[in-house]
Amino acid sequence: MNRSVIAGVLSAALLSLSLSAQAVSPEEQIELRKAGYSYMSWNMGKIKAQVIDQSVAYNQTQVATAANTIAAIANSGMGALYGPGTDKQVGAQTTRVKPEMFDNFDDVAKISARLSDTTGKLAAAAASDDQAAIRVAFGEVGQTCKSCHDKYRQK
Amino acid sequence: MNRSVIAGVLSAALLSLSLSAQAVSPEEQIELRKAGYSYMSWNMGKIKAQVIDQSVAYNQTQVATAANTIAAIANSGMGALYGPGTDKQVGAQTTRVKPEMFDNFDDVAKISARLSDTTGKLAAAAASDDQAAIRVAFGEVGQTCKSCHDKYRQK
Repeated sequence: MNRSVIAGVLSAALLSLSLSAQAVSPEEQIELRKAGYSYMSWNMGKIKAQVIDQSVAYNQTQVATAANTIAAIANSGMGALYGPGTDKQVGAQTTRVKPEMFDNFDDVAKISARLSDTTGKLAAAAASDDQAAIRVAFGEVGQTCKSCHDKYRQK
Repeated sequence: MNRSVIAGVLSAALLSLSLSAQAVSPEEQIELRKAGYSYMSWNMGKIKAQVIDQSVAYNQTQVATAANTIAAIANSGMGALYGPGTDKQVGAQTTRVKPEMFDNFDDVAKISARLSDTTGKLAAAAASDDQAAIRVAFGEVGQTCKSCHDKYRQK
């Protein structure tokens, strides 16, 4: 599919999400999506340290708020931050996204839905203080992240 | 209070939050707190456009997920991102924080608690599709942000 016609064929989900970002420049979109992923990654790190590696004492409140933050960001409409012109560096904002991501929004929407599902499970497990369930859900979230990175992020 | 002894007198809340960030370098702490604020700001902008300015059509799901994201980040333990050595530029990471913030953690903890309270109200109003309540809560969140910026952020 030609990238120039992508704007007209975005999936309904991505299109509805993009409406609120019309005032956000391509440079800002890249900055914001990187911010969102960084913030999710920091919170994944907290859960990893406390529940997976157990290098930091488990604190249920911290793990629950971390999981809740990850789920919230995953559901915050990041698709709106992949608008036209954001497939390459803009101004000071570099991006590791592979341009072919913009030809595969249907597949990205499936990964995005899986991220929503798995982060929701992680938040639920953390809220109920179930460390075994947190471990399972954490692994599923990580696999979901990796599946997108493997396909659509440059090394 | 001498800044060099701050580490020993952090409020209990900030101290407990900081435990999970021990592996995060000062440079990363600055990057991550800026990421968190940027991501909150983007989501505040969506609510502003749809409910305050009404320049974008109101979409309850978008507003509710935006408010939920703001509340989640506000409750995610950002205090851990103000560790020792983060009161000035580190490496590539600039910061607009005024150094005196690090002498006033008790006051910052009060503002942080107010941010948690007001963003919780915003999320609740958005979840219940109550635009009048969203407007009130949005204003309260904005005032809370501004109260911290006025005191502790450089122009």
